[in-house]
Amino acid sequence: MIIFDTPESMRDWSLTQRAAGRSVGFVPTMGALHEGHGSLMKIAVERDDITVLSIFVNPTQFAPHEDLDQYPRTWETDLAMAQEIGIDAIYAPKPATMYPEGYSTYLEVEGLSKGLCSRTRPHFFRGVATVVTKLFCAVMPHNAYFGQKDAQQCAIITRMARDLDLGVNIVECPLIREDDGLAMSSRNRYLNAAEREQGLCLSQSLFTALELLQSGERNVDAIINHVQNGMARVHIDYIELVDALTMEPVTTIDKPIVLAVAAKIGETRLIDNIKFDPAKVPAATLTTGVV
Amino acid sequence: MIIFDTPESMRDWSLTQRAAGRSVGFVPTMGALHEGHGSLMKIAVERDDITVLSIFVNPTQFAPHEDLDQYPRTWETDLAMAQEIGIDAIYAPKPATMYPEGYSTYLEVEGLSKGLCSRTRPHFFRGVATVVTKLFCAVMPHNAYFGQKDAQQCAIITRMARDLDLGVNIVECPLIREDDGLAMSSRNRYLNAAEREQGLCLSQSLFTALELLQSGERNVDAIINHVQNGMARVHIDYIELVDALTMEPVTTIDKPIVLAVAAKIGETRLIDNIKFDPAKVPAATLTTGVV
Repeated sequence: MIIFDTPESMRDWSLTQRAAGRSVGFVPTMGALHEGHGSLMKIAVERDDITVLSIFVNPTQFAPHEDLDQYPRTWETDLAMAQEIGIDAIYAPKPATMYPEGYSTYLEVEGLSKGLCSRTRPHFFRGVATVVTKLFCAVMPHNAYFGQKDAQQCAIITRMARDLDLGVNIVECPLIREDDGLAMSSRNRYLNAAEREQGLCLSQSLFTALELLQSGERNVDAIINHVQNGMARVHIDYIELVDALTMEPVTTIDKPIVLAVAAKIGETRLIDNIKFDPAKVPAATLTTGVV
Repeated sequence: MIIFDTPESMRDWSLTQRAAGRSVGFVPTMGALHEGHGSLMKIAVERDDITVLSIFVNPTQFAPHEDLDQYPRTWETDLAMAQEIGIDAIYAPKPATMYPEGYSTYLEVEGLSKGLCSRTRPHFFRGVATVVTKLFCAVMPHNAYFGQKDAQQCAIITRMARDLDLGVNIVECPLIREDDGLAMSSRNRYLNAAEREQGLCLSQSLFTALELLQSGERNVDAIINHVQNGMARVHIDYIELVDALTMEPVTTIDKPIVLAVAAKIGETRLIDNIKFDPAKVPAATLTTGVV
């Protein structure tokens, strides 16, 4: 496993791989790897000839009051995990390499960056879109793998990659959960036992909402009220039912939607979501729904 | 000479050239080629193994009231000129390919995009930065050639290419003038004989200002007043003396500067500029300056 820390060395290596006819897969992360990242890496290793993992805690997607300094750094165990899964190269640039003095270029993805997480983290997607473009330009992958946990991020990056002709295919991969249902996140390690217990209300509310949807419920307010009741004991940031492509709130459920939630448990902000496509309701459930 | 009209076909070809060890040079244009473009193409052909010319009249850098529809299109003569100079490939995407439905990603280069042309054309550099990034991602050049005529554009694109790790070396090439001194521009063909005559005051004022600078004048107001007097008969958009790197107005002349002007002659907007480096005053002139 080779480690690169400059865009030039990373790109040279990647272009050499491409020139040799190999497909390059890429998993961008901020490190503090968990099984969610592991599943992305495994999918990449299986699908592409060569795989690159980036580890970079990106300062431009944190606001001054957020947890940049405190964000977990677990370099040694991250490397061990990547090695075990069969990652070929790590791209781990330093902040001063990524944002040298006088840095002034930023990306905006209009429309998609409104609502949901943008409301409490208005700087977030500008930072994400900018750093992902930089990472793509350095790694030059054919495919890049993102988790559905960050549904809005997936939608934004898919749009951005298409808009800018980045030549990168965005692969959205399933959200991975702990055994008890909690969506995996590097921030879960901030939770104490009581908070961890509380945090389960996100996934549990979403699961029962999914059952409602699968059994035919199509009233947006009813769905949202249901989730709201389930999350009554935590500090809700948002509960939104949005179009899966545009990330805009919907009033009727007649195409693929994302039901997304965010909440604060103590000092820790957690997000979770489920996807639902009314055209793909399992036959058995449909019958129940119709009855 | 091969013509490509999609980013995918363009990139595949370019990556094949790179994989074969050839350097790729790129001259982005909006067509309506004149000898200024010709000089960029010749420099590229001389310096790189393979050269790509793009021809795309970019709608996002025009405001609704500007001359997008009227902008000259001279496809056949453009191709003939490129062929004669020895360009290897043309990239000429259609507007619908560049900006498909739902297009929503834009670049901002902060700081450098203020002042000068941004004041009357606030949309301009956002459109330029966005389209140039798209063109770079499709053409994947080692070097890209821009004319010094668009000094602010050169500064912005140099910064942007560095900031986003685009891996493209920006080569700023000399401004090319007509025999009478008028800076070459695709828009010069809008001018009638009287306007053309009037337009000469831009370059003439800049030339005499350069003589002042070379003979030791270091008072910014004196330089600007001099140019203002020379351009008294035209509608001045701006006259600015700025730092050549940051494009910010200066009050003292102790590092490389750009003296830039813009004016409207009838309906036609012209720009021009000179560069001056106080550390590089010719010896003979310096003596005169000191005396």
